[in-house]
Amino acid sequence: MAEIDYILHPIGFLQSSLKRREDAPKQGREGAPDAWLIVNDEFAEGLDRVAVGDELIIISWFHRSQRDTLKVHPRGDPAIPLTGVFATRSPDRPNPLGLHRVTVREIAGSRLKIGPIEAIDGTPVVDIKPVLPHTIDA
Amino acid sequence: MAEIDYILHPIGFLQSSLKRREDAPKQGREGAPDAWLIVNDEFAEGLDRVAVGDELIIISWFHRSQRDTLKVHPRGDPAIPLTGVFATRSPDRPNPLGLHRVTVREIAGSRLKIGPIEAIDGTPVVDIKPVLPHTIDA
Repeated sequence: MAEIDYILHPIGFLQSSLKRREDAPKQGREGAPDAWLIVNDEFAEGLDRVAVGDELIIISWFHRSQRDTLKVHPRGDPAIPLTGVFATRSPDRPNPLGLHRVTVREIAGSRLKIGPIEAIDGTPVVDIKPVLPHTIDA
Repeated sequence: MAEIDYILHPIGFLQSSLKRREDAPKQGREGAPDAWLIVNDEFAEGLDRVAVGDELIIISWFHRSQRDTLKVHPRGDPAIPLTGVFATRSPDRPNPLGLHRVTVREIAGSRLKIGPIEAIDGTPVVDIKPVLPHTIDA
């Protein structure tokens, strides 16, 4: 394959009470708070028919990550042997995309209150997808 | 938020019997075939501890998509009202990332046979994540 790069355009970002990576739980269901997803005006039309109570997959960009990491100790635990990043959910990985399954709590124009979500304040968001009914597809 | 762009580096690509977008089912579980995921040598170390039988989330880049589309008829059905792309799984969206939940069928070095997956031949892959145990998190 030819070497090709692809450019992501953030569609919005998160406003969260989690300010530092070291404060964030490892996964949303490990006590993470709700957060506001602020969608940029130019993409707001894409939210049409998103409703309170919907389950969504948020794809974020872990902007504080190390992209040259290929092996990690899962969950940062040195007792767990080094493991390829593609077998882990480490935010340090070649393309630091985060997947977050959330519920829509509230909608105010192009702002969505969602949660639980472990990403920190200011995290860019690059995509939003519905959880498919009748499946557990990601 | 400042306007910032982010560059994805494909970590590999798919070899599939699906050659054209119009031949592909809408979702992997709608009769899609298995495919080979060819991981570039420079990222192969990241596969350490990925095993046959694992369930993975593949994040692809729908390289044939329209990025300026914000509303679509879901499933291409004109009888379904226009809907914001963030409430659909349309491949046409501002950042055309695809999510595919697959099972690892076979491993040959840095090549993984995975499926079912509806992405077409040549589709770039940008990330691989494990499905988390005891959750249906994406």
